[in-house]
Amino acid sequence: MVGFDLTLTTAGGETMQIHFIEGNEAIARGAVAAGCRFFAGYPITPASTIFNTMMQTLPPTGGVCMQGEDEIASIGFCLGASMAGMKVMTATSGPGISLYSEQISFAIGSEIPIVIVNVQRLGPSTGSATKAADGDIQFMRWGNSGGLPVIVLAPVDVRDCYTLTATAFNLSERYRCPVFIAANKDVSMTRESVAFSELTAPGPENRRTAPPDREYQPFAVSGGRMVPDFLPVGGQRLVRQTSSTHGMDGYITTDPAAIAENRERLKNKILAHRDDLALYSEKRVPGARTLVISYGVTARSALQLADRLEKTPDPVSVLVLKTLWPVSEGLIRKKAAPYDRIVVAELNLGQYVRELERLLPDKQVRFTGRMNGNLLTPEDIKEAIAHE
Amino acid sequence: MVGFDLTLTTAGGETMQIHFIEGNEAIARGAVAAGCRFFAGYPITPASTIFNTMMQTLPPTGGVCMQGEDEIASIGFCLGASMAGMKVMTATSGPGISLYSEQISFAIGSEIPIVIVNVQRLGPSTGSATKAADGDIQFMRWGNSGGLPVIVLAPVDVRDCYTLTATAFNLSERYRCPVFIAANKDVSMTRESVAFSELTAPGPENRRTAPPDREYQPFAVSGGRMVPDFLPVGGQRLVRQTSSTHGMDGYITTDPAAIAENRERLKNKILAHRDDLALYSEKRVPGARTLVISYGVTARSALQLADRLEKTPDPVSVLVLKTLWPVSEGLIRKKAAPYDRIVVAELNLGQYVRELERLLPDKQVRFTGRMNGNLLTPEDIKEAIAHE
Amino acid sequence: MVGFDLTLTTAGGETMQIHFIEGNEAIARGAVAAGCRFFAGYPITPASTIFNTMMQTLPPTGGVCMQGEDEIASIGFCLGASMAGMKVMTATSGPGISLYSEQISFAIGSEIPIVIVNVQRLGPSTGSATKAADGDIQFMRWGNSGGLPVIVLAPVDVRDCYTLTATAFNLSERYRCPVFIAANKDVSMTRESVAFSELTAPGPENRRTAPPDREYQPFAVSGGRMVPDFLPVGGQRLVRQTSSTHGMDGYITTDPAAIAENRERLKNKILAHRDDLALYSEKRVPGARTLVISYGVTARSALQLADRLEKTPDPVSVLVLKTLWPVSEGLIRKKAAPYDRIVVAELNLGQYVRELERLLPDKQVRFTGRMNGNLLTPEDIKEAIAHE
Amino acid sequence: MVGFDLTLTTAGGETMQIHFIEGNEAIARGAVAAGCRFFAGYPITPASTIFNTMMQTLPPTGGVCMQGEDEIASIGFCLGASMAGMKVMTATSGPGISLYSEQISFAIGSEIPIVIVNVQRLGPSTGSATKAADGDIQFMRWGNSGGLPVIVLAPVDVRDCYTLTATAFNLSERYRCPVFIAANKDVSMTRESVAFSELTAPGPENRRTAPPDREYQPFAVSGGRMVPDFLPVGGQRLVRQTSSTHGMDGYITTDPAAIAENRERLKNKILAHRDDLALYSEKRVPGARTLVISYGVTARSALQLADRLEKTPDPVSVLVLKTLWPVSEGLIRKKAAPYDRIVVAELNLGQYVRELERLLPDKQVRFTGRMNGNLLTPEDIKEAIAHE
Repeated sequence: MVGFDLTLTTAGGETMQIHFIEGNEAIARGAVAAGCRFFAGYPITPASTIFNTMMQTLPPTGGVCMQGEDEIASIGFCLGASMAGMKVMTATSGPGISLYSEQISFAIGSEIPIVIVNVQRLGPSTGSATKAADGDIQFMRWGNSGGLPVIVLAPVDVRDCYTLTATAFNLSERYRCPVFIAANKDVSMTRESVAFSELTAPGPENRRTAPPDREYQPFAVSGGRMVPDFLPVGGQRLVRQTSSTHGMDGYITTDPAAIAENRERLKNKILAHRDDLALYSEKRVPGARTLVISYGVTARSALQLADRLEKTPDPVSVLVLKTLWPVSEGLIRKKAAPYDRIVVAELNLGQYVRELERLLPDKQVRFTGRMNGNLLTPEDIKEAIAHE
Repeated sequence: MVGFDLTLTTAGGETMQIHFIEGNEAIARGAVAAGCRFFAGYPITPASTIFNTMMQTLPPTGGVCMQGEDEIASIGFCLGASMAGMKVMTATSGPGISLYSEQISFAIGSEIPIVIVNVQRLGPSTGSATKAADGDIQFMRWGNSGGLPVIVLAPVDVRDCYTLTATAFNLSERYRCPVFIAANKDVSMTRESVAFSELTAPGPENRRTAPPDREYQPFAVSGGRMVPDFLPVGGQRLVRQTSSTHGMDGYITTDPAAIAENRERLKNKILAHRDDLALYSEKRVPGARTLVISYGVTARSALQLADRLEKTPDPVSVLVLKTLWPVSEGLIRKKAAPYDRIVVAELNLGQYVRELERLLPDKQVRFTGRMNGNLLTPEDIKEAIAHE
Repeated sequence: MVGFDLTLTTAGGETMQIHFIEGNEAIARGAVAAGCRFFAGYPITPASTIFNTMMQTLPPTGGVCMQGEDEIASIGFCLGASMAGMKVMTATSGPGISLYSEQISFAIGSEIPIVIVNVQRLGPSTGSATKAADGDIQFMRWGNSGGLPVIVLAPVDVRDCYTLTATAFNLSERYRCPVFIAANKDVSMTRESVAFSELTAPGPENRRTAPPDREYQPFAVSGGRMVPDFLPVGGQRLVRQTSSTHGMDGYITTDPAAIAENRERLKNKILAHRDDLALYSEKRVPGARTLVISYGVTARSALQLADRLEKTPDPVSVLVLKTLWPVSEGLIRKKAAPYDRIVVAELNLGQYVRELERLLPDKQVRFTGRMNGNLLTPEDIKEAIAHE
Repeated sequence: MVGFDLTLTTAGGETMQIHFIEGNEAIARGAVAAGCRFFAGYPITPASTIFNTMMQTLPPTGGVCMQGEDEIASIGFCLGASMAGMKVMTATSGPGISLYSEQISFAIGSEIPIVIVNVQRLGPSTGSATKAADGDIQFMRWGNSGGLPVIVLAPVDVRDCYTLTATAFNLSERYRCPVFIAANKDVSMTRESVAFSELTAPGPENRRTAPPDREYQPFAVSGGRMVPDFLPVGGQRLVRQTSSTHGMDGYITTDPAAIAENRERLKNKILAHRDDLALYSEKRVPGARTLVISYGVTARSALQLADRLEKTPDPVSVLVLKTLWPVSEGLIRKKAAPYDRIVVAELNLGQYVRELERLLPDKQVRFTGRMNGNLLTPEDIKEAIAHE
């Protein structure tokens, strides 16, 4: 069920280590590489093989992998473990994200690190189990009460699944917020061969904890940082956590100034770092007048199209966004500047395109999308470009 | 606890019937006027007095008002009753909308009418119970899997609470979709005196049911209509309902053409009627160069400011949006056209302003907002206008 | 669905009011006559028509009838309402009694009045839904942790259903303990005509509450009484209730003397009143050497047999026990004394016969029973008598 | 937290392996020795250390140990695993047995092997957490709908905990029924040193499965056996299991003859083997006129008293029952025969004494018991003997 690892020997006698794994397995491996030691979830295709891989990986090394009695319990277990100091991950699909919603709000407001993998499938509701869609792009951003920001990363292939998941852990610890991996069925359940050496990830970044010798305020910040040092669980200090509005001391408050300060900080700790968070790849083709902007599995079709058209009279460039939220505003404006025409390709009926319309008021922005269980092909994108 | 009705007699001997009620009670009365006969919910301030009013109103007239064991059960009861032919409503606040999320997706995909009142409070999570905010404006639109549209109406005062709730029922039946009332603590729990004669609402509109004498396809449409006739529950025909992707016959399908047709229809049955759905009010002041766009309780501050500035050298006009979703694109573009400067005032950190930025690329769009438990005052808005 | 009431006119012109109702309806009417104003339950045949009748009866008169989300919630609602001063009832069948078990323990230990109707069906588990059995006779007595006594009454016919239910309420208030009605499918769902005048019940007995002017200990007793006065809910005094071992003041305690006093009292408040509680009927036939002891629907076969044999050389007498627990030890010994042979007839594989063997060591005690979905007939009992 | 193992070296250089463990750990070890590979439970003192030991023991050897979200889920997991072929155990205390009740009925009716440890504490309800009592002796026998028999074994000490648990597994597989271990707080949480060599248990006995080459009826018996061969899960045959009354083929039935045959068999498969199941120990003192009958931790006081009185003019003998249900009727009658007086010592207000009164009508049967959190001492028992 789970992918396997091979050793290939070339004619010249050299050996090469190869994984033949699906995206979900790469996500699980990336999580473990980043220091994840706790996973809880409830089964749902196409996310279940993340659970399976974690179940094989975590317990033998002292980690915990458990199935909650439902999604609400599962994310609750994760948040509890995270507050206790562990790096945690959960994985589900759209209907499960619905059930996570209340506790995502809690994680945002209480600044609890967690990586949430959403292996999207075609909704709404049960929809088509299991066909791909990228139907939850706005849902991940806005699907909880209050409207404060989260981080969402979108992998394109198995390698991204590994790398972006490891990155997600680092960002989650650094910004103390939920970080989503916006996978979908075709990214997660397609098996690819990938050389060991390609699966690289940034070194694990651990949460900053307050120095033990000073007075401690659990939600105070200092030195220009916008993220409080973590509650040093297990030490002499009392840890205090409330889902209500709270001051720097962690006590509930209804003081408007304290609430405003906190809400502004929750917003700005992420939005002020848009540029640091702007992950992407691109294919720039000289002479192209059209830029295709895409993400996730659809980016593969866009890149394939760009390859095909490279030597033709009408070549296209491609910008692949790997950070969807916060919106990489500076990057997008800069990358789009040279082009006359922007084509946005998404596996839904038009979601991220709204952001691009907002950011690029002076460009012609076209959209091509689909929500029928099939992927967007290079031809589909080409047609959208050609359409006058 | 519940508001009361008075008879005032003027000096001249004329009598006048007056309600002294809060918004929540007006919502409940509006629902009953529109034909609502089923309510289920789980207590949460500031929504609970809707439940209380319904509990006093529905059972004596043969209706049903019940408290579910939690929010998940409550909306489930509503959807079941709606499928069985009743007009239904539920009410909660942000954390409860989270728990409704999964079944909102079901209602969208299965085209089940329901009115959902979200009496917003300051989030995220438990937040400040109970201070007002309009923090769920994007959440109501996007807070479920798949990204298909819903309708969201925002009342400004007690009269709107009555009228828009009644309208919400009609739209819900007409378009077979969830319709939200985006109230908040200050709209819902402020008591106002209002003359009986002012509480007017459109006549109840009932769901179209299929003629009994023809072959019936539960999700087929005809004659240019985009909404299928309702399942004639209780008759000879078998009623079929699935949360999975289904064809016109209601059977599960994975046929891409059938899914695409259905998804496009779910989207267009609402978006193609944007203009019909565009509810608003306005104050147009000759000579104004600034248009304040607002909604909900904040609109009252905007209107007050416009009154104050009417005779000054720098008057402002106000556009009050009562339909938030779908976005009244034509209306907004038209109403904004004469102005140089747009100021968007919302009780959050910037949500609906994103839509206005997208729609009005050639305008200077400013934002003023707040998320600290206090309302935006006319002075706050004036300051945003003045700021260079 | 629910029975009806008739007015019959005799040839002589006299009128007579007749009910044509089933046992479950009589139980519901008896409860209301006794002052029951709160009912909660979860549907299960053959108990559901009690719920239905209560739903029609209670709300119009200001009472509450509700369906819990399951049996655990249902009995919980009842106990809460009882602690708040209402007379409460719930009804289920064997599998539901299982789910009541934990809270029956709570009611015993915290001395909370409640009437629990067990409309028995053929178990174990789902068994035959819906065939009769009296398979829970020991279960009602012993089906909770700790082994402290409860009261169990067994109706024979529709009249008993009415009268014993009303009695059960009085006993529950007087002894502050759970009182079971041990019905079964055939007692509860057989419709009989019964004259209004026959449905008589003792007047409602209300809980003793402590005088308002003295110092109050919630679990103290005085004046030779073994049952504490009830917590005067709603007054100035603090009500205290714990499921843990507690002293007279209601505070948790681990003092052995206090616990022992309490446990002995819980036992003796019921067992010391065995004789007062000994409800029964009988048919004594001169010259009979055999006494048939029975209860519930089976008693009807026993009585019929006694009628048939009355004029034969081998007549039998019948003792019908209407109080099963506490065991009417004095009554049984006295009534059995004149007979050589005791035949116990029960609709199970031998449950109450164990008590009779224990009490009547010097008698030949025979058993006849059955557990196949059919009733015991007069012939079955006759056969057991004849068998040497 | 968990006990440890020592190696002692005697003066003569011999080594001896010693465990210093509590009863709960011995129960867990006995279970594993008998082949238990699946454990699920929900925490409750004084049973929780069984869970802890299983958690350390099972997963490293490929077994499963899990915490359910509550007791209902926990026993459900066990029954599912047992139906799938595993040997399973769960452990709780009185309030948890309440929540197991419904599924104990299912296990009886569907003949599913399971070992249920009840580490009794002082009830009813929450009672004293955590003081000992043997308050569930009748509850284990009768605490489920239908009244069909189960097996209950009562350990006296750590050695019994090991041995009887292993025996319980064998009986559960042999008779396809729930087998209870009736421990209590003082048996389970007292640590004793015990030599490895003393922890002996019968070899594991595995369930009989039907031969693969014949037509198969899941609930048919043959060859004088009263227990059907087990459903051969995993093979070619369809496994069928219903909680309803069923025939030999496993299909639901309401045929009275089929139900009667099945119910009689469920009863007799256990009761007809009373003698094989009669586990006990005894101390017979020549010249004694009094026999103390006891079980569980109280038996230790009885045995100590017998030791003390052995050389006095009024010695006593002791019969320690290790099988409580089914009642070892032949054994008890035979062992009691030589004595004039029977004293029954139990840690409750009189439960098992009812059975002894029933069985020994011609003896003077006295009872001594207690329910206050303290154990019965030898002096307590002596006083009961002396009392005239």
